[in-house]
Amino acid sequence: MKLALVQTNPVFGELRANVEHALSLMERVAADLYVLPELFNTGYSFASSEELSALAEPSAGQTSRAMSRFARGHSCYAVYGFAERAERIYNAAALVGPKGLIGVYRKVHLFDREVLLFAKGNRGFPVFRTPLGNIGVMICFDWIYPESARSLTLKGAQLIAHPSNLVLPYCPDAMVTRCLENRVFAATADRVGAEDRAGASLRFIGRSQLVSPRGEALVRLGDVEEGCAVAEISLSDADVKTINPHNDLLLQRRPNQYTS
Amino acid sequence: MKLALVQTNPVFGELRANVEHALSLMERVAADLYVLPELFNTGYSFASSEELSALAEPSAGQTSRAMSRFARGHSCYAVYGFAERAERIYNAAALVGPKGLIGVYRKVHLFDREVLLFAKGNRGFPVFRTPLGNIGVMICFDWIYPESARSLTLKGAQLIAHPSNLVLPYCPDAMVTRCLENRVFAATADRVGAEDRAGASLRFIGRSQLVSPRGEALVRLGDVEEGCAVAEISLSDADVKTINPHNDLLLQRRPNQYTS
Repeated sequence: MKLALVQTNPVFGELRANVEHALSLMERVAADLYVLPELFNTGYSFASSEELSALAEPSAGQTSRAMSRFARGHSCYAVYGFAERAERIYNAAALVGPKGLIGVYRKVHLFDREVLLFAKGNRGFPVFRTPLGNIGVMICFDWIYPESARSLTLKGAQLIAHPSNLVLPYCPDAMVTRCLENRVFAATADRVGAEDRAGASLRFIGRSQLVSPRGEALVRLGDVEEGCAVAEISLSDADVKTINPHNDLLLQRRPNQYTS
Repeated sequence: MKLALVQTNPVFGELRANVEHALSLMERVAADLYVLPELFNTGYSFASSEELSALAEPSAGQTSRAMSRFARGHSCYAVYGFAERAERIYNAAALVGPKGLIGVYRKVHLFDREVLLFAKGNRGFPVFRTPLGNIGVMICFDWIYPESARSLTLKGAQLIAHPSNLVLPYCPDAMVTRCLENRVFAATADRVGAEDRAGASLRFIGRSQLVSPRGEALVRLGDVEEGCAVAEISLSDADVKTINPHNDLLLQRRPNQYTS
């Protein structure tokens, strides 16, 4: 399969234009699965709950419809971050395919001021069985909790789709460790640019990357430019958990020796 | 406190000489805690269980006595790897201090041919309360399981003493992630040199390092030379689990959202 990382620079609040611009980047590169950043349609720095509420939408809202239309037209899949309006508002990511919305993940570990705005995810870490393979989803700051990628791996994920809005510098290297320890692919799609609003000045680091189960960076984007980069991968490579004749990384976990 | 990494190149089977040589390196550098490599006294590539059995010793054996004598004489502590003869034989690490043996850790995750030689550790991951602070211990390949460092952190470790005999290249970077995700210090003491015996040719990567709770490499040794390097650290830095006003990394773990 071909996986595309879509690195964008959304304009805060310009939901329709941000979606259209991302779709125009996706049009340039043929792929089976596109992974987009966290909150790629709204931007990141909400000044208030009211502002967030005005930009949030249901999981089957206009962004889902636009992405599903693309997926149907191109017989492909896409994972993207958005603000989900449900009984509360979640920092969420959806997977859509040729038949429309497949599922939603709600961010479990909220970062910094997000805790003031969003409700904490309450449905664990989902893995979606698709014709491409088993796709797990986590969002941005979930990277710092090894339990996130581990949970997805134990539930059968071959690939971790990882929409992000990174402001700290550590995630790209840490995701190499996540891939090595779990023997999965990870596609971190980050944004670039800056937001200077809501009393905060944030710069996003870009550096979107696709890492293999052996910890190899197959694709890496820069820290300034938008872009869409693609790599051909075999998700079944993630089924190999042995690293030598005597070590199977998952079978040799020893939960009764752990403190959790 | 001053922590010293002791990077050695043991000669296989020369137990007494290896211990004396390590002590001579330690004599050159004053420290409160010395961390030595895995199996620093015996070497690594045992050809058979019989050979291992001949080089294993009780936790209070001759190596413990020599290290304890040094600790008493210098009012310090030391963590070192050795082959422990108990009801079975373990790949173990001991902590000694001015009053002698404090405790032993038995390697939980055995690497490659170790599974043919050693019994699996059966006492979890220990944290020892000392006047210096709370010292947790894990050995080498335990690094690839995030549960190891996490268990030590949840049990209160401020520092992870990590005797190693590394042959894969990934651990130094991964330990930076371990420190970031747990906000602890980690002292990986590795060996250098090669062993060409028991049908295997192994080269050890050295690169011993001390990493801070912020993921900074405070000390790094090379990949060829022996040596003993020291850094001054405050273990209480590891008590700070907050990374911004809204995120406490440990308090915000969400075990009911995890699959384990």
